[in-house]
Amino acid sequence: MNAPTALSHLVPEFHPRAVPQALLDALAARFGARCSTAMAVREQHGRDESSFEVPPPAAVVFAESTQDVADAVALAAKHDVPVIPFGVGSSLEGHLLAVQGGISIDVSRMNKVLSVNADDLTVTVQAGVLRKQLNEEVKSTGLFFPIDPGADASIGGMTATRASGTNAVRYGTMRENVLALEVVTASGEVIRTGTRAKKSSAGYDLTRLMVGSEGTLGIVTEITLRLYPIPEAISAAICSFPSIEAAVRTVIQVIQLGVPIARVELIDVNTVRMVNAHSKLGLREEPMLLMEFHGSPSGVKEQAEVVQEIAAEFGGNAFEWATTPEERTRLWTARHNAYFAAIQSRPGCRAISTDTCVPISRLADCLLDSVAEADESKLPYFLVGHVGDGNFHFGYLLDPNDPKEREVAEELNHKLVARALSLGGTCTGEHGVGLHKMGFLVDEAGAGAVDMMRTIKRALDPKNILNPGKIFSL
Amino acid sequence: MNAPTALSHLVPEFHPRAVPQALLDALAARFGARCSTAMAVREQHGRDESSFEVPPPAAVVFAESTQDVADAVALAAKHDVPVIPFGVGSSLEGHLLAVQGGISIDVSRMNKVLSVNADDLTVTVQAGVLRKQLNEEVKSTGLFFPIDPGADASIGGMTATRASGTNAVRYGTMRENVLALEVVTASGEVIRTGTRAKKSSAGYDLTRLMVGSEGTLGIVTEITLRLYPIPEAISAAICSFPSIEAAVRTVIQVIQLGVPIARVELIDVNTVRMVNAHSKLGLREEPMLLMEFHGSPSGVKEQAEVVQEIAAEFGGNAFEWATTPEERTRLWTARHNAYFAAIQSRPGCRAISTDTCVPISRLADCLLDSVAEADESKLPYFLVGHVGDGNFHFGYLLDPNDPKEREVAEELNHKLVARALSLGGTCTGEHGVGLHKMGFLVDEAGAGAVDMMRTIKRALDPKNILNPGKIFSL
Repeated sequence: MNAPTALSHLVPEFHPRAVPQALLDALAARFGARCSTAMAVREQHGRDESSFEVPPPAAVVFAESTQDVADAVALAAKHDVPVIPFGVGSSLEGHLLAVQGGISIDVSRMNKVLSVNADDLTVTVQAGVLRKQLNEEVKSTGLFFPIDPGADASIGGMTATRASGTNAVRYGTMRENVLALEVVTASGEVIRTGTRAKKSSAGYDLTRLMVGSEGTLGIVTEITLRLYPIPEAISAAICSFPSIEAAVRTVIQVIQLGVPIARVELIDVNTVRMVNAHSKLGLREEPMLLMEFHGSPSGVKEQAEVVQEIAAEFGGNAFEWATTPEERTRLWTARHNAYFAAIQSRPGCRAISTDTCVPISRLADCLLDSVAEADESKLPYFLVGHVGDGNFHFGYLLDPNDPKEREVAEELNHKLVARALSLGGTCTGEHGVGLHKMGFLVDEAGAGAVDMMRTIKRALDPKNILNPGKIFSL
Repeated sequence: MNAPTALSHLVPEFHPRAVPQALLDALAARFGARCSTAMAVREQHGRDESSFEVPPPAAVVFAESTQDVADAVALAAKHDVPVIPFGVGSSLEGHLLAVQGGISIDVSRMNKVLSVNADDLTVTVQAGVLRKQLNEEVKSTGLFFPIDPGADASIGGMTATRASGTNAVRYGTMRENVLALEVVTASGEVIRTGTRAKKSSAGYDLTRLMVGSEGTLGIVTEITLRLYPIPEAISAAICSFPSIEAAVRTVIQVIQLGVPIARVELIDVNTVRMVNAHSKLGLREEPMLLMEFHGSPSGVKEQAEVVQEIAAEFGGNAFEWATTPEERTRLWTARHNAYFAAIQSRPGCRAISTDTCVPISRLADCLLDSVAEADESKLPYFLVGHVGDGNFHFGYLLDPNDPKEREVAEELNHKLVARALSLGGTCTGEHGVGLHKMGFLVDEAGAGAVDMMRTIKRALDPKNILNPGKIFSL
């Protein structure tokens, strides 16, 4: 194994366990070439988009069926060895890292859309299906799946982290949009949770318990999701504001009035400059809201009028509208390219992303003070936000070889989280706890609630083999 | 204690445990007159709207604060004695019955709306607040809480059963509308789950685990709920149809088109006759849909036009519209009085209510076959449904002194549930499992999922004192 790098002292719960040769032999016997111990494969499965580094898993199993996952887990359980499910590796919080060693179970080949029930607005997919693939495959039915984290993540990974994204302000998150699951338990059994009925009061909500459990209570193998009719009319707009405050106050009023806006994203002036440099967009270099309205033609028009009126009160101007798919795509380029534009604005940098979410009335307070702190730090950063939900991300762009910069970024993040919690918010709106926010979770939920989580974890995974060392220490 | 009545052989998990005098003394010392052992009080807390009868709890504690609940639970835990939370007693499934003895903790005096955060569209209430009271208290803010089971239930009870009602088709159920909880655990500790942020990925979703857990994992003492702006325009309509099938097919198409209808209730011809007799409404004696549209004036008009067009295709006629609150109330009288009208249609009867919910495309299949079976049985019944969600209730009106009739009703319910499950549905859309549906839960969820529920229950309540004997056997 590689020696831990200089960063690994920051990794909590770093206690690699031995992976006995007997397990590797058993996996090889069961999976043949679909079990790999090649270093390149292991390394690819031993990192994600977080800034942590630990040695990779001892082996990678490429599962092609639920039975494959169940068998791999059962074999690992026999040897008390951790298992970590892997979709596409887009976690931002170290979810995929083998901090306690173990094997990676790659579900990317489980990529079938199993059944589209267009009449019920539901679809059942395997865990490795990607969100863009899903939308491609259901498009002909006139339906779509709205949850869109930035990355083209797997539906399994999105389920595990309770993902959301730009459409959540109208359509909710994975919490609201997963109807039923198939899950492999810690002993390698296969259970089903939920049904395709829209609602149910039948016992404990195991579906919602699994959603957001980050692979620590079970490995999700199949997911039944809600779909929505593609709106008859879609209209997008960008609008510039004299200040972040003006943009945010506009959003707050839109939400409080109950306008069913489908997307409302904030992009700060730093980010506008970065995307202008990256994508030659020629956008006005001011804070900006990107918005989208879904509905009937007259409904969309009505929503847009209300929002334009509110924006005008706060000095919003340079409204630009788009109704065709091509025009909309152009407007959304700024948002979609923000992350890459930011990374490229400082060659060699890594981004540390924050993820606080606060009640909408506290959004301005939370954001503005944190912007002032970030500006003062002199660390380059970008700021984007699903502000209709009160959720926003600072991306601090740091030199990975400068520990001082990391320290500054962590300090900014700590202050931001403390502020969000004091305002009734959460440390993570959509990325999950993973490795990075364990301390924050205790601050947020309190020792009693985290103890209850631990009790559930110990009961459902007595050997602590399901993605151990994530969310909380045991 | 009373001897079990003739019905109690039907009560599963009937194993009363002794309540030691030492506990009663300790409760009396702690709560004084707020702990009652008077038979009238115990009996009032030992039954609900279900048809089960068992001896009442040994004592009733009237809690006035979270600390009261915590202390009562801690004392009961010390003596291994069950505790059963009590709101208003409107459970339909025997949730409140002391099948294993114990004490009732009445939270009806915990009836304060603690904080209305109108700017965030949230409210925090004590568990004993009633839903109508809540709406009265927030009305001046221009907001409302949409979840409306038939009864004027307590918010704590609605949380415990994952309640929904007529508005769920648009606004979701308690699952979607509870943001955060304060909960007393099995050891008498107080924890908080969730925050006021609209979304979060911070650890296990304990909020959703508690919602619908029927008092078996903790006693809910405070609830933070989402509120919604009172719609600018509300329009209600009734429409008669030549057959249930025509009404149901109209609903299916409305939902599949994504019309954001706020309410759509089916009332069968039996029920129309009963409410005509009860409330002198003079309604056309045909199956009927009651609908409500929420939105802007033009949005409501647009929705109504689409629905009227679809209804016409299926022979819907006699559309009657209402836009003022008074007219709407009159139209909804038929729905609101259905239960009482039905009960009064057969003096001395008790209703056994079914609660299946199926994917919308299967609604006609599920309903029509069950209607045919019910008609054939000759047992009087009424049928109402939150059909936009695929959820409906047969109420079989039986003579409680005729075991044969109960047998027929149970047989009809069994067939209905089996049909709903085979169509991808659930045995309970909104009433909960309680005592009556334990067997159905296993059929629906499978032994593996129910075992996972048991494992969680045992871990969080090792002495099995929290409303024991409900949902599943241990």
